[in-house]
Amino acid sequence: MDKKEYYIKQLSKTNKKNYENYVVCRIINFIDDLSLKFITQQPITMRNGKKALADLYFPQIDLHIEVDEAFHKNQIDKDKMREADIVSATSHTIERIDVTKNIELINLRIDNIVKKIKDTIEGKKKNNTFIPWNIETEYESKTYVGKGYIDLDDKVAFKKIVDACNCFGCSYHGYQRAMARHPVEKDKALWFPKLYENENWQNNITDNGKVIVEKRKANNSEFIKTYLSNPERFTRRRIVFARVKDSLGNVMYRFKGLFKVNEKKSQNEQAIIYERIKTRVKTYLVK
Amino acid sequence: MDKKEYYIKQLSKTNKKNYENYVVCRIINFIDDLSLKFITQQPITMRNGKKALADLYFPQIDLHIEVDEAFHKNQIDKDKMREADIVSATSHTIERIDVTKNIELINLRIDNIVKKIKDTIEGKKKNNTFIPWNIETEYESKTYVGKGYIDLDDKVAFKKIVDACNCFGCSYHGYQRAMARHPVEKDKALWFPKLYENENWQNNITDNGKVIVEKRKANNSEFIKTYLSNPERFTRRRIVFARVKDSLGNVMYRFKGLFKVNEKKSQNEQAIIYERIKTRVKTYLVK
Repeated sequence: MDKKEYYIKQLSKTNKKNYENYVVCRIINFIDDLSLKFITQQPITMRNGKKALADLYFPQIDLHIEVDEAFHKNQIDKDKMREADIVSATSHTIERIDVTKNIELINLRIDNIVKKIKDTIEGKKKNNTFIPWNIETEYESKTYVGKGYIDLDDKVAFKKIVDACNCFGCSYHGYQRAMARHPVEKDKALWFPKLYENENWQNNITDNGKVIVEKRKANNSEFIKTYLSNPERFTRRRIVFARVKDSLGNVMYRFKGLFKVNEKKSQNEQAIIYERIKTRVKTYLVK
Repeated sequence: MDKKEYYIKQLSKTNKKNYENYVVCRIINFIDDLSLKFITQQPITMRNGKKALADLYFPQIDLHIEVDEAFHKNQIDKDKMREADIVSATSHTIERIDVTKNIELINLRIDNIVKKIKDTIEGKKKNNTFIPWNIETEYESKTYVGKGYIDLDDKVAFKKIVDACNCFGCSYHGYQRAMARHPVEKDKALWFPKLYENENWQNNITDNGKVIVEKRKANNSEFIKTYLSNPERFTRRRIVFARVKDSLGNVMYRFKGLFKVNEKKSQNEQAIIYERIKTRVKTYLVK
């Protein structure tokens, strides 16, 4: 997918929502910067824990925009949200646009927001913390191997499990399983779980992304017992890439950090409790 | 309808057409001029006589824009076109945008067109020939009474028959009939015909707007005979406001000029043939 296709697909999501379409298009047009990624209708977790769709989200600058219409918007589709790549909006800057006002005022408000966004980008460029959006390389292993690490702040995701594996010294052509050995750091594994209820599992991740809960639907106590009776297994740290669906409905594996089992809590809660111990992991060239 | 509503309604027509939506929004945003009227999907007659929809049309500057996609667009709905407010594109400037190119080139092309449009507006402003779009007054009688005339170049239309009547010295509160007397110029009448096939009539107007053909479906020869045997009737000039549907589907009465019956041709062709003799008519204050 090139940027043209990306723009068209993202903007077309706002199609049936006329005010949203107007506001989103005007913002995107006036920012006029192909190095700034945007996502329309981004699933977010708000401060109060509620899930919602942000009308327009800029991942590089942690900013999202809400179009406030006179009526309440449609309920979000819970089934779609279950697998979604949900972002915590806790640290976001949120800008609201009241579209019940007249067009001159709406345009003025948009102009102000666009100016703020451009200033933010400029500021980040001065600090060397702005990473220009590159639609060709953002999902490639070599981008992160070259960088030397994968960090939560960089909002890294891969389209295929194999691309995540190949960031850590693997040279797979294909890989489909949910677990992989870390070829360099032997005390670690790569894990690609579904962190939502699915056929066999009742998994989840907390909104702040710090705790993963793994629970089997059938024979859970046996699973827990076996798991915790194997020290080699439960002491192994897991680099987690959660299976999600991106804003256009495509499967992705989103980096969530390095996790470690909390043995005691797992015993008490009869679920495997993984706690995040690092937000950055080293990457490796193929040996 | 205010400008906000107008913008939203016009832009929403492009909603299901993703490239069109992108291009049209970007152009409208970058022109960023609420005094320039625009119409999306404007029915036009092309030089070859074919009817089509122009993706974006600016009536004040006689310019329209075509979004060229890789595939052929859907056929136009002939039934909808029948009653449409069709514009002759013969004298239009036409700009084409090839959306099969990459987004950088599409954006560049749009920027060039926007610059041309802004230059055209500037040029017209210098010559005092730019009439800023005023959505409140464009359909009001007093606008044209104040001006002293109605001219074809000004692309005048009214939402109601009564508003057209009240441009000529009438002070009606309501008027629904297809003919009205001209209260000042006694040799003229006001006519509000359907210039397309309808229940009782087989009417039409030529693409260049210069000739109207009126024909009854039943007892046409009797109708012609009676009509032409009455000199008072056939010598009366007609100020014509054709009933059309505007780009948003609302009924409007579009000024078409002053017409006069050609007696001989009408005899020969067994239809009443009206020929345009003036493109501008005087307006009058209420006596």
